[in-house]
Amino acid sequence: MAGNTFGTLFRVSTFGESHGPAIGCIIDGCPAGLDFDLDFIQHQLDRRRPGQSAIVTQRKESDTVQVQSGLFAGKTTGAPIALIIPNEDQRSNDYEHIADAFRPSHADFSWQAKYGFRDHRGGGRSSARETAARVAAGAVAKLILRSQGIDIQAFVSQVGHLILQQPYTELNLSGTETNDIRCPDPVMAEKMIRLIKKIRKAGDTIGGVVSAVVRGCPAGLGEPVFDKLHADLGKAMLSINAAKGFEYGSGFAGVSMTGSEHNDLFLPVDGRQRTVNGGQWAAEGIKTKTNFSGGIQGGISNGMDIYFRVAFKPVATIMRDQTSVNSDGEAVVVKGKGRHDPCVVPRAVPIVEAMTALVMADHWLRNKIYKKGLS
Amino acid sequence: MAGNTFGTLFRVSTFGESHGPAIGCIIDGCPAGLDFDLDFIQHQLDRRRPGQSAIVTQRKESDTVQVQSGLFAGKTTGAPIALIIPNEDQRSNDYEHIADAFRPSHADFSWQAKYGFRDHRGGGRSSARETAARVAAGAVAKLILRSQGIDIQAFVSQVGHLILQQPYTELNLSGTETNDIRCPDPVMAEKMIRLIKKIRKAGDTIGGVVSAVVRGCPAGLGEPVFDKLHADLGKAMLSINAAKGFEYGSGFAGVSMTGSEHNDLFLPVDGRQRTVNGGQWAAEGIKTKTNFSGGIQGGISNGMDIYFRVAFKPVATIMRDQTSVNSDGEAVVVKGKGRHDPCVVPRAVPIVEAMTALVMADHWLRNKIYKKGLS
Amino acid sequence: MAGNTFGTLFRVSTFGESHGPAIGCIIDGCPAGLDFDLDFIQHQLDRRRPGQSAIVTQRKESDTVQVQSGLFAGKTTGAPIALIIPNEDQRSNDYEHIADAFRPSHADFSWQAKYGFRDHRGGGRSSARETAARVAAGAVAKLILRSQGIDIQAFVSQVGHLILQQPYTELNLSGTETNDIRCPDPVMAEKMIRLIKKIRKAGDTIGGVVSAVVRGCPAGLGEPVFDKLHADLGKAMLSINAAKGFEYGSGFAGVSMTGSEHNDLFLPVDGRQRTVNGGQWAAEGIKTKTNFSGGIQGGISNGMDIYFRVAFKPVATIMRDQTSVNSDGEAVVVKGKGRHDPCVVPRAVPIVEAMTALVMADHWLRNKIYKKGLS
Amino acid sequence: MAGNTFGTLFRVSTFGESHGPAIGCIIDGCPAGLDFDLDFIQHQLDRRRPGQSAIVTQRKESDTVQVQSGLFAGKTTGAPIALIIPNEDQRSNDYEHIADAFRPSHADFSWQAKYGFRDHRGGGRSSARETAARVAAGAVAKLILRSQGIDIQAFVSQVGHLILQQPYTELNLSGTETNDIRCPDPVMAEKMIRLIKKIRKAGDTIGGVVSAVVRGCPAGLGEPVFDKLHADLGKAMLSINAAKGFEYGSGFAGVSMTGSEHNDLFLPVDGRQRTVNGGQWAAEGIKTKTNFSGGIQGGISNGMDIYFRVAFKPVATIMRDQTSVNSDGEAVVVKGKGRHDPCVVPRAVPIVEAMTALVMADHWLRNKIYKKGLS
Repeated sequence: MAGNTFGTLFRVSTFGESHGPAIGCIIDGCPAGLDFDLDFIQHQLDRRRPGQSAIVTQRKESDTVQVQSGLFAGKTTGAPIALIIPNEDQRSNDYEHIADAFRPSHADFSWQAKYGFRDHRGGGRSSARETAARVAAGAVAKLILRSQGIDIQAFVSQVGHLILQQPYTELNLSGTETNDIRCPDPVMAEKMIRLIKKIRKAGDTIGGVVSAVVRGCPAGLGEPVFDKLHADLGKAMLSINAAKGFEYGSGFAGVSMTGSEHNDLFLPVDGRQRTVNGGQWAAEGIKTKTNFSGGIQGGISNGMDIYFRVAFKPVATIMRDQTSVNSDGEAVVVKGKGRHDPCVVPRAVPIVEAMTALVMADHWLRNKIYKKGLS
Repeated sequence: MAGNTFGTLFRVSTFGESHGPAIGCIIDGCPAGLDFDLDFIQHQLDRRRPGQSAIVTQRKESDTVQVQSGLFAGKTTGAPIALIIPNEDQRSNDYEHIADAFRPSHADFSWQAKYGFRDHRGGGRSSARETAARVAAGAVAKLILRSQGIDIQAFVSQVGHLILQQPYTELNLSGTETNDIRCPDPVMAEKMIRLIKKIRKAGDTIGGVVSAVVRGCPAGLGEPVFDKLHADLGKAMLSINAAKGFEYGSGFAGVSMTGSEHNDLFLPVDGRQRTVNGGQWAAEGIKTKTNFSGGIQGGISNGMDIYFRVAFKPVATIMRDQTSVNSDGEAVVVKGKGRHDPCVVPRAVPIVEAMTALVMADHWLRNKIYKKGLS
Repeated sequence: MAGNTFGTLFRVSTFGESHGPAIGCIIDGCPAGLDFDLDFIQHQLDRRRPGQSAIVTQRKESDTVQVQSGLFAGKTTGAPIALIIPNEDQRSNDYEHIADAFRPSHADFSWQAKYGFRDHRGGGRSSARETAARVAAGAVAKLILRSQGIDIQAFVSQVGHLILQQPYTELNLSGTETNDIRCPDPVMAEKMIRLIKKIRKAGDTIGGVVSAVVRGCPAGLGEPVFDKLHADLGKAMLSINAAKGFEYGSGFAGVSMTGSEHNDLFLPVDGRQRTVNGGQWAAEGIKTKTNFSGGIQGGISNGMDIYFRVAFKPVATIMRDQTSVNSDGEAVVVKGKGRHDPCVVPRAVPIVEAMTALVMADHWLRNKIYKKGLS
Repeated sequence: MAGNTFGTLFRVSTFGESHGPAIGCIIDGCPAGLDFDLDFIQHQLDRRRPGQSAIVTQRKESDTVQVQSGLFAGKTTGAPIALIIPNEDQRSNDYEHIADAFRPSHADFSWQAKYGFRDHRGGGRSSARETAARVAAGAVAKLILRSQGIDIQAFVSQVGHLILQQPYTELNLSGTETNDIRCPDPVMAEKMIRLIKKIRKAGDTIGGVVSAVVRGCPAGLGEPVFDKLHADLGKAMLSINAAKGFEYGSGFAGVSMTGSEHNDLFLPVDGRQRTVNGGQWAAEGIKTKTNFSGGIQGGISNGMDIYFRVAFKPVATIMRDQTSVNSDGEAVVVKGKGRHDPCVVPRAVPIVEAMTALVMADHWLRNKIYKKGLS
């Protein structure tokens, strides 16, 4: 109930604070027999790691994952998988100045209002450092999805006022990881990097948008009422630190369209043969002409690409003095100190992918229960 | 796991199809001793009812709620509250033409892909008729929130390209229910109604945006990691039929701002006295200068207004013929038939409020567990 | 959290009080495509119905089940199944004398301690009438299990000091339903019925034991740590009104045995061939010599019969005056009034079966997720 | 769903195998502000530790607990508490002989039937070593209960045929920890120890019973339908390795009693004054003459002592050769090897207490939500 667990069948519980000994997670519900590719998992963590480039925070963490349980002979056993990532480069002294001051637009005040006191060191549990555990767990989910041919790719599509205008279908997504900002268009990437460097130099921060595409998802994932696939994706994205909005398919832009423009017409299947599959009806082969639905209709995937966008606000920690209050409501000045990202989106890309993977693996398992009825 | 239950402590399970005997819900976890205001609940259902005005579907349903359990002497007992709403005006024959044809951008295809067959009458379980049960349950949640001084108001802020530009703080929200479209600005309301009538005449449909404000929420609601207050609000909104996007506070627009512009500075409290409350620290009185955070920081309410926007696509059922396929993948034509809304947003207003109430009541109860620690 | 829902994948939420309009349930998670045998479900309710014989309560309820949702063309659709059973023969006046008096060993006092007030009519929500909803839901679970060849049979094995000494393997369980007490041994049944009639005549009540056997369960059901199959069966049984104990396999008697006596040796399989099943290992064919384990080892079924026993206390309502207190702690006399069972076990037999079915169907679904790994 | 989490509000997820790097748990939902008494937690682990006396397994584990998260300045923060216990004395070679042989009455066969393969080293995840994580989490739960004056004491009441006949009210429970078997009667303790030594010498094992008493529990804990307090206690106990039965209050013996004998009469309160408590009714002061109910009526605590008994089978690992089969169903001989307990009950005492504490702390939190209604 305290909300540190995500998922229903593929369940991840995370723990850890910015300045405690370690962060980590337990994955419960991973099927047995999965080849556990530790290098792949570490690689995902490396993509999120602080200090990886000139435009992210310079905190030095190797983020080396340690597996505590759940494996035998290189495979998952069906038992819980515990993953631990030790904290290495804590500078708690950097936070003494906010022991009794609320940083603007941080969780300091609301946390204290909830619990009566707080761990002020690096934001404690509300630090984005917690997302490293999500990335580790998401990497295990990706291993499941990979075995099913389901692929997830996220990329940066906006920084400040710089907007990548092309639809994802016209982009070469394989170029995403070739630059520090993780934007698939190299020209735009260069502009975004310059903007971030300029913003950082001014002691300020800027917002951005991460877009994501899921390819290879079969029709049938998602539950039709409350646990619609896009509702669970939306919750997953909005649970990421600094997220402010979520839209899928046509999103907010679809509001201005008419039904006759927006409806995705089904295309007839040329010479289609019923799949010989115990007489069962098969959905494969039926496609739509357009995809304003974003691959999800009535909360259930329809076999087309799933795509969505996530808005991230500018980072709240800026390198400028700000007026604020202490817990007695008295005016104080919060100094601009510490090591922080000038813009979250480059490091948010692997986090968006990880949270997407957790949702997709969970719904893939959920769908397994029902898809073959009583057989 | 099949996803027909919403909430963790204030839990609502809904049932029913468009063309079955009834729809309804069980509310589990409502505290004992709540005055059960049946007129209020019926009034909320009346706000969502079909046939209420010229710009909504003309299906005739009285949507009369029947209480089956959970009350004694006019108060809730702590036992589950079962609410039933009989279906009255079904015209199943209206749907024979889609018994084996997939309506574009409906759940017909994805549902069949998931379960192997489907109840085609009126969309079956995927019909928006299911939301009547949510409104009934949400009305009970509103009774709880009302007793705590927490108020929820939704309104239409966009229809097609017609956008209400003022921030909610400059609108007279009490005017929302005085027109058929539920837009608080009477001039804009008139334009929106004219647009919808024109669109309907053309046999087409149009999208829209519903905005919502929660006032009177104390600081401390929401859980800091996965169950952030805005993440649960987002999921709730995205689970409503036809929803395509969600943003809170500055939302997608906040992306273009810098941290120094976006941060909400805390204001000093003049002559503030510590609340004499067993020595416990009290958050009341600390406010922010701006509210780009939308009343939520780090996933936890901070005592300021909570506000957000929900995008709805144009209704998929249009009164025009559309090309599609049957379950053999063969080309068919889907006729434009039946009784449907030309735009969902006027009836979505009470649904958005209801889902908001479910989230807020749930988090209010969740916060009760921890807010006083071990006392 | 208020505990009116049972199960994880096959989830049942019940509602209703003894003296409200109706009782019922929502079943969420029933697979699509199940033939819905309404006669079978009604028959299970008839087995639990009051007034069915001379040794049970004479309250007159037809307990006719009404299906509100979840079916199409005689089959389940995957949508929630709502079942309603109207209350017919309420005599609320029978309970005026306990409006402010706590009946000994009833839930009156503890309920009032929890909620601050209570619905005193017929025990309100704590009435055993709630179990009719369980029997209805359990009947649906039995339909699933029947399709898998899993069979559940319960019977009365003790009334007061009268104990059926034979192990279930030596009894003809098909005789269970041929007498009013539901004891498979006709001689013992006759003795038990005489004892109950004598006890009733004295205005008193008596306890009993219900035994149950599950046959045809494949190996692999149950989760290894907290959700052991027998732990979930135990919780299910102990949640039935008046239950005081649960034991499976050798149970409390196994305590006095040594490991060398108690261990169930596996028997070699004569000329066994590996099942040609995509190369997968198959557990079928491996049996144990004895079955002190009760068909469950390490919390997981091993393919042998599952069997267990449930102890029920004497009914608390007796037809004699008893001293008690009112809510001011003052001495009062509680009159012996109303219509009640002198012994719960004959009507507990279908309830034990229903709760067993809920657990088995739930674990059958849970096992489906994992049993074929990533295929 | 894979069942490695226990509890609803006070939630514990455990991980780890007998022969992995570590075992441990995450506690989610512990209230903020609890003084974290690490010595107390370590002491509880020491009570369960192997090698602590001559009558338990001689595996050498210090079972030193390491706290990874959730604390600040010696208090809980409301964030998840991760506890890790490294494994130290693994002898995996001891288990090579069962890499492809099913030990009788172990989880080897059923586990392989479920997952297709298994970690054979020391029973893997089905090892009772997992219970160390439960004891650590239970110790935190005990800290909460201690702050509320709720006390839990378990003790050994039977080993083989040796039965402690006195009711717990006639025993000096403070003597429990003064002998190796944890029986409060020193004479019986001596007999039990002698019996276990004799059984061990014969290469055999023996069963036993652990009894438990909860004192100081207020009226009102437990939910009235499925999550009855005794149903959750029963599940908790039955989830412990080797448990075969559970009974509370009069238990199986109550079956032979009549209602007039078994009913617990409420006693009038001499000169009782309504507690001046905002006009709210108070349950304190109302007691029963007898306590066959075991402190729980209708699933809700009534303020009297809660007491119950748990049956444990003889340990399956014996120091004798046993016939069995391998995964091809061929006859094999399983050698008696390894380090094991001849009787589980002395080490089960702290485990029973820990699981009791998890249930009680969870229900104490659950009751907090509702007990003061809307205030």
